[in-house]
Amino acid sequence: MKIEQFIAQSEGEWQSMRSGHSLAFRQFEQVISLITIKRIESNHPDVISLLNSNNKLKGELSTPFRINWKSESDWNDDDLSNNGEGSCILVPLKNTSREGHILRNKGYSENSQVVSSYKFLEDGTFVMLTDYINSIAEEKIWFISDNVRCRSSVVRTSKGSGILQTSFASEVRKIECT
Amino acid sequence: MKIEQFIAQSEGEWQSMRSGHSLAFRQFEQVISLITIKRIESNHPDVISLLNSNNKLKGELSTPFRINWKSESDWNDDDLSNNGEGSCILVPLKNTSREGHILRNKGYSENSQVVSSYKFLEDGTFVMLTDYINSIAEEKIWFISDNVRCRSSVVRTSKGSGILQTSFASEVRKIECT
Repeated sequence: MKIEQFIAQSEGEWQSMRSGHSLAFRQFEQVISLITIKRIESNHPDVISLLNSNNKLKGELSTPFRINWKSESDWNDDDLSNNGEGSCILVPLKNTSREGHILRNKGYSENSQVVSSYKFLEDGTFVMLTDYINSIAEEKIWFISDNVRCRSSVVRTSKGSGILQTSFASEVRKIECT
Repeated sequence: MKIEQFIAQSEGEWQSMRSGHSLAFRQFEQVISLITIKRIESNHPDVISLLNSNNKLKGELSTPFRINWKSESDWNDDDLSNNGEGSCILVPLKNTSREGHILRNKGYSENSQVVSSYKFLEDGTFVMLTDYINSIAEEKIWFISDNVRCRSSVVRTSKGSGILQTSFASEVRKIECT
């Protein structure tokens, strides 16, 4: 699997069911989201800006893309304004065909610009590692059919091996019926 | 990762949080379980019996083990008798250090003797594939620390590519405080 192929396969609208597990409290969270993934031009101002702020990072520019999401969590029943809606731009820089870095103008766990490293396992699973200020996130994404992908994540404390949360999402491509 | 190392690391009592996703109905299931994994002797009568009923299968006998589980699902509030409790014996037969078969005297999805194939990915993830009569299950297990492991599964229809359910479990080793 190459990053371009992975992004091409990920493009589209996805209906996501995500379960979060807070291990310390043995609490479940359930989130329903609509996620849109779309390639953007390499000369988009936000792409240029991300590249300029990380100009020490080597690698060949690959397909930049945007992720939009709109979520409803069962933890936020009384305060719908807390339900998530957002957008971020991701810019992959390849080192080899199987690994590299991804620049992002917003992280999931912490709301700042982030640099992640990524690689592909032999079975095509995409693995992304992100050092945030207060946490480390490892995300895995793998396709179980052309139109269904799975996404697992582990969030650890950055100063030790404490595991804060795991999560798992099943994402089904939304296909328009004509 | 070798199968002996994986079983040694898995031995013990695990508190499991499992989320099931029924994709067609977008329904979540939440299951809390206590899982016990324990090595058993190679000359245990159930091990001998499993080997005798599958004597055409090649491979070197590795560490047989038993899994006991006791589960409470949020789908079974009104009928606690439906909550799961069970036990099965698993007998690995190695082909190489990274792959082989596992004989089991009971499957998870269907209640009959089953043969699964397994392999390890380069990052140590254990991947097990099981052909049941009416379904195909792919299970992945990976350690995210010495005392926390993740387990994902995908159940497909055996006559096509329809995905019936995905699930994800976070399993934390139960450590006795002395």
